[in-house]
Amino acid sequence: MLDRPMPGAQVAFPTEAGQAPPGASPYRIQRTMRLRNQNRPGVLGEVATAIGAAGGNIGDIRTVERGSRHKVRDIDVSTTDLAMLEAVLTSVRELPHTELLDVRDEVLRVHLGGKLRVSPRYPVRTVTDLRHVYTPGVAEVCRLIESDPRVADRYTGIANSVAVVTDGTAVLGLGNIGPVAGMPVIEGKCALLAQMVGIDAHPLLVEPGPSDEIVAALTRVAPSFGAIQLEDFAAPHCFEITPALQARVAIPVMHDDQHGTATVVLAAVLRAASMTGREATGLTAGVVGLGAAGSAIAQLLMHFQGRPVYGTGRTPDSIERLKAEGGIAVELDELLGRCDLVIAATAQPGLIRPDQVRPGQIIFAISNPIPEIEPERAMEAGATLAVDGSVVNNLLGFPGLFRGVLDTRARRFTTEMYVAAALAIASRATHDEVVPDSLDPGVHREVARAVVRAAVAGGVARAEPSLEYFEDWPSSGG
Amino acid sequence: MLDRPMPGAQVAFPTEAGQAPPGASPYRIQRTMRLRNQNRPGVLGEVATAIGAAGGNIGDIRTVERGSRHKVRDIDVSTTDLAMLEAVLTSVRELPHTELLDVRDEVLRVHLGGKLRVSPRYPVRTVTDLRHVYTPGVAEVCRLIESDPRVADRYTGIANSVAVVTDGTAVLGLGNIGPVAGMPVIEGKCALLAQMVGIDAHPLLVEPGPSDEIVAALTRVAPSFGAIQLEDFAAPHCFEITPALQARVAIPVMHDDQHGTATVVLAAVLRAASMTGREATGLTAGVVGLGAAGSAIAQLLMHFQGRPVYGTGRTPDSIERLKAEGGIAVELDELLGRCDLVIAATAQPGLIRPDQVRPGQIIFAISNPIPEIEPERAMEAGATLAVDGSVVNNLLGFPGLFRGVLDTRARRFTTEMYVAAALAIASRATHDEVVPDSLDPGVHREVARAVVRAAVAGGVARAEPSLEYFEDWPSSGG
Repeated sequence: MLDRPMPGAQVAFPTEAGQAPPGASPYRIQRTMRLRNQNRPGVLGEVATAIGAAGGNIGDIRTVERGSRHKVRDIDVSTTDLAMLEAVLTSVRELPHTELLDVRDEVLRVHLGGKLRVSPRYPVRTVTDLRHVYTPGVAEVCRLIESDPRVADRYTGIANSVAVVTDGTAVLGLGNIGPVAGMPVIEGKCALLAQMVGIDAHPLLVEPGPSDEIVAALTRVAPSFGAIQLEDFAAPHCFEITPALQARVAIPVMHDDQHGTATVVLAAVLRAASMTGREATGLTAGVVGLGAAGSAIAQLLMHFQGRPVYGTGRTPDSIERLKAEGGIAVELDELLGRCDLVIAATAQPGLIRPDQVRPGQIIFAISNPIPEIEPERAMEAGATLAVDGSVVNNLLGFPGLFRGVLDTRARRFTTEMYVAAALAIASRATHDEVVPDSLDPGVHREVARAVVRAAVAGGVARAEPSLEYFEDWPSSGG
Repeated sequence: MLDRPMPGAQVAFPTEAGQAPPGASPYRIQRTMRLRNQNRPGVLGEVATAIGAAGGNIGDIRTVERGSRHKVRDIDVSTTDLAMLEAVLTSVRELPHTELLDVRDEVLRVHLGGKLRVSPRYPVRTVTDLRHVYTPGVAEVCRLIESDPRVADRYTGIANSVAVVTDGTAVLGLGNIGPVAGMPVIEGKCALLAQMVGIDAHPLLVEPGPSDEIVAALTRVAPSFGAIQLEDFAAPHCFEITPALQARVAIPVMHDDQHGTATVVLAAVLRAASMTGREATGLTAGVVGLGAAGSAIAQLLMHFQGRPVYGTGRTPDSIERLKAEGGIAVELDELLGRCDLVIAATAQPGLIRPDQVRPGQIIFAISNPIPEIEPERAMEAGATLAVDGSVVNNLLGFPGLFRGVLDTRARRFTTEMYVAAALAIASRATHDEVVPDSLDPGVHREVARAVVRAAVAGGVARAEPSLEYFEDWPSSGG
C-alpha cells in the first residue's frame, strides 16, 4: 500500500466496497492525447479549459513538433472513468484551433511484452566465443567453483542477482489479486533495481499457500541469488515467512512492505523532526495499525529511539507482536492524546477525526490511496506537520539496501542497516523536502554506502568494498 | 555429457579415475597469447613449431595490429596442464623474432560477473516514465490481468521467459558437482536462448533433494515462466522429476539431457541414413546405455521408426523402461550383431571393440569426452559411417524447441515436436555435414517453425502465430 512514487502521485483506488469515492470507478484512466494546435495566443488555454470542464486532470505537456503555424503537443490526461474520457475527447475535438491526432495508452505500451530483458553479456559471434561461454570452456569454470565455491561470486552472476518474489496476496492497494496479476509490480521493481543500482533482478512468482511450503520452495531455489526481496506478501503470513526464510538461507531476505517501508518512514520522521525543530529521539511516537508496515515501523522506531512506542492494532496477534518488541498497547484516543508523532498505516480512510489531533503534533497518515486524515485537515486542526502516503516512496530505500548487502556479501539485513539507510535518505533531502527525489542517483549511492558501513561495523560483512568503488556507479542497467 | 558445441571441440576430461589419459590433468588449460612478430617470412612458422614442440595445441590466430615492421597477433593455445603451459611460454619467449606481450585467460574473462544481464526495457528517466512503469500506472495493468489473466501474456514477460533449472547432479561430463558449480552451464544456456531466439531466460538453481520436493518447489514458482528447461539432472531421478513436474504445471517442461539430446541425435541419424543411402525408418536400431540420453533416444527412435529398438542397459529399471516403451532388451553382443544403427551413450570409454563392429554399420559412439569406440577405429573395422559425441550439439535443438512452444502457448512438448525439430535440423545440414552449424540462425528459425506447425497440427497450440512472424527474428537478445 505504500508504493507511491512521489508527492501528489495518483494512486489506484482500492477495490473494496466503501473505500472508493462515490461514483468513481476503481481506477483513474490515463491516456496521452496528441494534438496539433494552431500557433496563436490562448490555444493551449482553450485546450486546458476544455479538458478541465469535462472533468479530466492534466498531467505533463510535451511539445513534439514546433512549426511556424502549428505546434504538436502530447498532453497526459486522466479521468475517473471511460465515459469521462469520452467527454474529454469530444470537448477537445470541438475546439476550433486544435486537431486531435491520436490518443495513446502509454502505460500499456510500456508493459507490452513485459518490462525486462535478459541478455548475454558476451554475445556469441564465432566458434571461439562459443567455446569460451559454453562448452568446452565452461567446464573449466564449473570445476573451479567445485574446488572453491567462493569463486562463484566472481565467475557467475549469483552475487549480483536478487530475486524479487511475490505471492500476490497484498498488491499495492489492490489486495489479494494473485501472483500473476502482481507480476507488473515486481517486474517494475526489478527494472528499477537494474537501473538504479545495476542489480540483475529476477521476478519470481510463487503460488500462494501455507507459509512453510512457500519457505521450502524459496529455500530450495535460494542458491540462485545473492539476496531475496519479498514483495506484496499479506499480513499476517508475511510475519511468518520473512523470518522463517531468513533462518533457512545464507543470503539476505527483506520484505519490502515491512522493512523497506519502515526505512523510508524513519527517513521521513527524521526530516519531519528536523523541519519542526525537534529531536527525533525525543518524540513520543505512536503507530496506528500494526499490519506489515505498521509493525515494522514500530519496531524500527523503537530501535532508533531506544524507547517504547505506543501502538494500536486490530488483532490480538499484532498487539502481542508490539509488546514482544517492547511497545505499549493503547486505544486510539489515548495514543492520539499522548504522542508527539502519530504514524497511521491502517488502510482505514478517515479514521482520525480533526478533533482528535493535538496542536503541535506531527501526523503521518500514510495509507494509500486515502489517508486516515487528509494532511490539510490535520494542519487546520493544529498539527505542526502532516503528510500522507505520498512521502513513503519505497523506491528511496530498496535499491540501495540491496546494493549494500550484495557488495558486502552480508548474510542478512540488520536493523542497523535500516537505520543507516534512513539517515542516508534523510541526508539527501533539501531544506523543504520531507523526502528526496527517488530518481536522484545520489540517494541510492548514499544508501548503499551507508548499508556497507553498517554491515562492516556490525560484523556481518564478508567482503569490504572500497567506498571509492561507488563513484562511477551504477555500472550497468541504466 | 552431450553438450559439445561442434565437431572437434575439446571437452573436459571426466574426473573419475581411469577415464583420463595417463599423465593428463582433468582439463586442458586454455589461454590466449598476444605476440609481437617481426614482419619477416617464416616467423609464424617458428612460433607454431615452438608451441607444438612444447606439446601445446594451437587454436585460432587473430591479427590484432598490422604495422610496417611488426604484426601483433592473438594465438589461442591449449595444454594438458600448467607445466606444459609453462614450457610453451618458455619456448615462445626464446624465439628471436617474437615478443610475448601478454597471456590471457579468455574463458575466465567472459565469466567475470556472470554471463547475463537483466535490464529494463524502458529506462526510467523522468517522473512520467516512473508513473508509467511503476506506480501508479502499474496498478492499471495489475487490475487488467486480474480481470482477464490471459492478458498477462501481453503485458508481462511471462510468456517469453524460460527458467533454465539445474540441481547440478550431472553437469557435463563432470558428474554431481552441485548446483552452484553448475551455474556457468545454465547461464550459458540462458545467454544462448537470448541470443539465438530472443527468449528471456532465467537461471535457477535448486538444492538437490528428493524428487517430490524438487517438483513441489518448481511447481510453486512455475507461474513466473512460460516454460521450464531442466538441465543436468542425473538419471534415474530425472525420469521421475520431468514427468511429475509436467503433470503439475500448465507450461512445457523439457529435460534437455533427455529430449533435447534425443532430438539432435535423431537429426544426426536422419543425416547419416541419407549420407549412406538408407531409409532412416528401415534401419534396425540399437541403443547401448539407457541413462537420461539413451532412454530418450530409444523412445524417440521408436516413435519415429514405428518399430522396436534394441537396447542394453545396466539397471533393471532402465530395462523395464525400455520394454514399457516397446523396446527389446538384449545383450551388447547381440545388439551389435543385429543392428544397422548402433547408438552408444554409456559414459564407458572403449566399450565397443573393433571386432564387434559389423561391415556397413552406422555407429554413433556419443559419450563425451571419450567415445565407446573412436570413429576412426570403427571405420577401419568396416563401419559405413561413424561419429562421436561432437555431432550431438544440443545447441541445435533447445533454442528453437522453446521458441516454438512459447509462440504457440503450448502446455507441453510432444514427441511430434521433437521429430519435427529433428527433421528441421537435418534439413539445414549441407551435403557432407552430419549436423549443421549451430551458429546458423536459420537452424533455430526452422526448428521453431517446425515446432509451431507440430503444435498446431497436434492440437496443443493455444495460439497460432503467423509464420511470417519468423522472418525478422530473433527480435532481441542478440
